[in-house]
Amino acid sequence: MLMKYRRGVYVGKFQPFHKGHLKCIQYALSKVDELIILVGSAQLSHTFNNPFTAGERIEMIRRALKDENIKSDRYLIIPVEDTFGVHSIWVSKVTSILPKFEVVFTNEPLTRRLFLEAGFKVESIPLYRRKLYSATEVRRRIIEGEDWASLVPSAVHSYIISIGGDERLRDLLRSDKEN
Amino acid sequence: MLMKYRRGVYVGKFQPFHKGHLKCIQYALSKVDELIILVGSAQLSHTFNNPFTAGERIEMIRRALKDENIKSDRYLIIPVEDTFGVHSIWVSKVTSILPKFEVVFTNEPLTRRLFLEAGFKVESIPLYRRKLYSATEVRRRIIEGEDWASLVPSAVHSYIISIGGDERLRDLLRSDKEN
Amino acid sequence: MLMKYRRGVYVGKFQPFHKGHLKCIQYALSKVDELIILVGSAQLSHTFNNPFTAGERIEMIRRALKDENIKSDRYLIIPVEDTFGVHSIWVSKVTSILPKFEVVFTNEPLTRRLFLEAGFKVESIPLYRRKLYSATEVRRRIIEGEDWASLVPSAVHSYIISIGGDERLRDLLRSDKEN
Amino acid sequence: MLMKYRRGVYVGKFQPFHKGHLKCIQYALSKVDELIILVGSAQLSHTFNNPFTAGERIEMIRRALKDENIKSDRYLIIPVEDTFGVHSIWVSKVTSILPKFEVVFTNEPLTRRLFLEAGFKVESIPLYRRKLYSATEVRRRIIEGEDWASLVPSAVHSYIISIGGDERLRDLLRSDKEN
Amino acid sequence: MLMKYRRGVYVGKFQPFHKGHLKCIQYALSKVDELIILVGSAQLSHTFNNPFTAGERIEMIRRALKDENIKSDRYLIIPVEDTFGVHSIWVSKVTSILPKFEVVFTNEPLTRRLFLEAGFKVESIPLYRRKLYSATEVRRRIIEGEDWASLVPSAVHSYIISIGGDERLRDLLRSDKEN
Amino acid sequence: MLMKYRRGVYVGKFQPFHKGHLKCIQYALSKVDELIILVGSAQLSHTFNNPFTAGERIEMIRRALKDENIKSDRYLIIPVEDTFGVHSIWVSKVTSILPKFEVVFTNEPLTRRLFLEAGFKVESIPLYRRKLYSATEVRRRIIEGEDWASLVPSAVHSYIISIGGDERLRDLLRSDKEN
Repeated sequence: MLMKYRRGVYVGKFQPFHKGHLKCIQYALSKVDELIILVGSAQLSHTFNNPFTAGERIEMIRRALKDENIKSDRYLIIPVEDTFGVHSIWVSKVTSILPKFEVVFTNEPLTRRLFLEAGFKVESIPLYRRKLYSATEVRRRIIEGEDWASLVPSAVHSYIISIGGDERLRDLLRSDKEN
Repeated sequence: MLMKYRRGVYVGKFQPFHKGHLKCIQYALSKVDELIILVGSAQLSHTFNNPFTAGERIEMIRRALKDENIKSDRYLIIPVEDTFGVHSIWVSKVTSILPKFEVVFTNEPLTRRLFLEAGFKVESIPLYRRKLYSATEVRRRIIEGEDWASLVPSAVHSYIISIGGDERLRDLLRSDKEN
Repeated sequence: MLMKYRRGVYVGKFQPFHKGHLKCIQYALSKVDELIILVGSAQLSHTFNNPFTAGERIEMIRRALKDENIKSDRYLIIPVEDTFGVHSIWVSKVTSILPKFEVVFTNEPLTRRLFLEAGFKVESIPLYRRKLYSATEVRRRIIEGEDWASLVPSAVHSYIISIGGDERLRDLLRSDKEN
Repeated sequence: MLMKYRRGVYVGKFQPFHKGHLKCIQYALSKVDELIILVGSAQLSHTFNNPFTAGERIEMIRRALKDENIKSDRYLIIPVEDTFGVHSIWVSKVTSILPKFEVVFTNEPLTRRLFLEAGFKVESIPLYRRKLYSATEVRRRIIEGEDWASLVPSAVHSYIISIGGDERLRDLLRSDKEN
Repeated sequence: MLMKYRRGVYVGKFQPFHKGHLKCIQYALSKVDELIILVGSAQLSHTFNNPFTAGERIEMIRRALKDENIKSDRYLIIPVEDTFGVHSIWVSKVTSILPKFEVVFTNEPLTRRLFLEAGFKVESIPLYRRKLYSATEVRRRIIEGEDWASLVPSAVHSYIISIGGDERLRDLLRSDKEN
Repeated sequence: MLMKYRRGVYVGKFQPFHKGHLKCIQYALSKVDELIILVGSAQLSHTFNNPFTAGERIEMIRRALKDENIKSDRYLIIPVEDTFGVHSIWVSKVTSILPKFEVVFTNEPLTRRLFLEAGFKVESIPLYRRKLYSATEVRRRIIEGEDWASLVPSAVHSYIISIGGDERLRDLLRSDKEN
C-alpha cells in the first residue's frame, strides 16, 4: 500500500478506550507513517461521562496497542486539555501542543468543522458497528451490570477492573443523581 | 545492572532540548524500565525564555533520542500545562495527566520539594557541566551569534534552523525590550 | 423628543441578530444620545446555542444598522467575554470594559437584577412579538428548513448564507446529538 | 464522650443552609475538637441552583450556629472556589486552603471518593429526613410559595427575607426559563 | 490615492493614547477603507504599566479621533482580553472576536511574528519620534511632574485629568514599590 | 470606647504573619464589633515571596490571636483567591465572598484606591515600625540565618519551625535563582 501522509492525528476522549477506537487507529495507521493519538478533554475525570483521568486513558491505549503488536515508533499519545468551551481557539491550541501533522482523522462533526475552517485536511473513518462500540454504551453496561468485556480490548478490561473503575463509575452516577 | 523502578518521570521545559537533558534521560533510563519525559509549561511559547511550542519541543526530543538509538518503547513524552503559579495543585495535576509512576528524577529544588511534600520518591541526577549545558546559555549564544551547535544534539540544531527558531528568538528579544 | 440619557447599554448575545434586536436598538436610541451594544458571551462560538463568533455577530449588527440608516456615531459595539458562570463579578467586568454609561436597557431578569443590585438604573424595553423574534426560533427554523429570512434583517440573512452559517448550524446540531 | 479527632471538615454548598445541615454539623462536632465548615462552589451565586453568594451563606451559617449556642471557637467557616470541573485537583486545592485536618464528614459519593482516593479518612453522617431537609426542596418551596420557614433555622429564614432572597430566586428561575 | 485594503487592524494597549498612536491611525486609515483599533490587554487596569481600564481607553480614542474629524464610519474600536501569556492562541482569539480583516498594521516584533506565522499580511508603520511619543514616557512624565500635555491629544489630557488619572498613577507607583 | 462600625475588613497576605499584623488587628478590633481578616492571594504558596499556603497562614493567625486572648467571636478569617491581575473585578469578588462589611482597614495604596473607587469607606492604620515588622524582612532574615523569632508572635515562630517553613524558604530561593 502507498503511504499517503507522513503524520496524522486521531482525536478521541477514550472514556474508556474500546474496540471501535482500536479499529479507527488501525485504519489511520494504514494511511500515515506516524499517528498522533490526541487524548481530548485531558483535564476531565471523575464525572459519569468522563470517569477516567488522562493518565489512566493513556495507560489503556498503550496496553491495548501493545497487545495488538503495534510498534511504539508508529504512534504518539498526547493529552490535550479543553479550552473550556471556547471552540474558536481549540485548533490553534492543538497545533501548538502537537508536533506538525498533515491530516486529521475524525467523524465528529464539530472537530471536522473546526479543522476544516482552519484550513486542515480532514479524512473520515469507515464506521464499524458504531452503536455497539461506543463509550456511552460501555459506561451504560458497566452501570447496568451487563457484559462490557466484549466491547473493549481485554487489556483495557483487566486494567479498568484493577483500578476499581467499575465501582468508581457507580459512585459517579449516584453523585450526579443527587446533584 | 538491576532495574530499580518500573516507571519514572523526568521533568523539564526543554527550551530548547540540549545535551545536558540527553545525559539526564540516559541516566534516568538506566534506573527505570520506562521513562515519562514531562514537557513542562506546555502552554508557553513565543517568549524569550520560552520560545518553542510544546509541539516543537516534542519534535526535538524525539529526533534526538532516535539519533541515540533509544528505543521508543522505553519512553513516553507528555506535555503538561502550568497551573498558573498555583504550585499547590501542580503535583495532583501531574498525577492525573500521567500514567502511574514510582519515582521522580529532578535536581530542581521546587519540583523536588513539591513531589516530596506529596509523598513521592525523588532522586537527583548527577550534574554534568551544568553551566555549559543549560537552556539559558543556548538561548544567549543564539542571540549573541556565538557557537550553540555544540551544546545541542545535531538533530536539534538542524530542526531549530529549519523552523527559523534562531530568527524567532531575536524577534522575541526585541519585543521584550520594547515592552 | 427629550433626550433623557447621555449613554446607555443594550445587552444581547445576538445568535443571530434578528428583527426583535433591531426594534430594541431603535427604542433604546430614542432614549439616549449614544448606545453601547454589548455583544455578550463574546468568547463563545461553534455550539448550537452560540453558533457565531463575536466577529461575525459584530458584522451582522453593523450591516443591519447601516441598512436602517442609523448613523455610526450614535452607537458603539463592544464584545464582552463571560465570567464563566461567576455572576457576581460580571457587572464590574462590564463597567471596566465599557465607557461610562448611565442606564441599562434589558428585559432579561438576571441581567436586570445584577445591574440593579450594583446600583445601576435599568429600563425595560417594550416587547415586540417576542415568541416570533427570538434567536432560538431563528436557529430552529434554520435547522428545520423553514422560513427564517423573514425573522432577520435582509443584510443578516445574506451574510449568514455567505459564511455558510446554516450548514454550520446543522453540523453543530449533529455534534451535540453525538455527545 | 471520647473526642476521636482533633480537626475535621464538613463539606457543603448551603444553597441555602437548612436544618439538615445543622444536624450534620452537630453530629460532626460530637466527633472532633474543631470543625471546618467548607462552603463549596464559593464563586457561584445568582443562578437558580446556586442563588446565594459565599458571603451570604457564611452569614446564614454564623447566625444559625450562634442561635444554637455553638461556641465560635469550635468551628471555622472557609469558602473554597471550584476547580471548574477538574475534579482531580480539587482535594489538593482544599488541603492547600484549609488548615490541616484528619477526617472528612460527607455522604456525597464524589466528595467521598475523591478524598478516599487521596488517602484521607472519610466518615459518613447519619441521615436525617433527607428528602425533606434538602436545599433543592427549600428552593422549590420558595418558588411555589409553599411553607419553607420550617425547613431552615429561623435566623436563616429572616436573613433570606431581609436580603430579598425569595424574590431573587424567582427572578433567577425566570431567567433560566428564557435562556 | 488608491485604497489597497478593505479592512485592517491596528493593535495597541493605549496606556494612555498619545499623539504617536494618532499618527499611526491616520497612516493606517490612508491604506484601508475601514480600520479596527484593537485595544489589547483589555482586562488590565490599575497597575503602573496598565493604569487605565479598557473603557477609559476607548473613551480617550473616541474623543481624540472626533477632535481630528475622523468620521466614525471609518473605524471600529474593539477591546480584546489577553490569553494570559499563551501567545500561540492569541491570533485565533483575535480572529474570532474581530470582524474579518485583511491586513495588520504593527511595528511590535511579537505581534508581527504571531500574525505572520498564522499566514496574515502585516505592514509596518513609519516611525514618528518614537522615543518621545511613547506611553512609557507619558507615564514617566506624569509621575515626575513634567510636561506630558504636549505628548497626548488635548482631549486625552483633559479626560485623564477629569478622572483623576494622574493621581491614580501615583498611587499605583507607590503600591508597586511596597510590593 | 465608642464602637464606630459593626464590621470591618483587614486585608493582608501574611507571608508570614508578624507582630506588625497583630498590632493592626488589635487597632482594627478597637474600631469594630467584628473584624474579617482577609487572607489575600489565597491560591499562592511555594514561591519565595509567597511561601505559605492559605491553610498555613490561617493556622498562624489563629494561634497568634488565641495567645493574645482575642476571643474567636470577634473575628472571621476568610481566604480569597486573586483575580490574576485583573484588578477591576477584585472588589466585587471580595464583596461576593465576604459577609457584608462597612469599612476597610488598609495602608496599601492600590487596595485603598480600589475600595474607594467602588464607594467603600477606607481607614488607614497607624504605622508601627514598618521597616522592621514586614514580611519581606522576616523572609530575608530566615534566609540569612539572622534573628527572626523576635519579629513574629512566638506561636507563629514555633509553627513555622514545626512545618519546616525555614527550610522550604531556602529551597524556594534556590529554585528562583536557577530559573
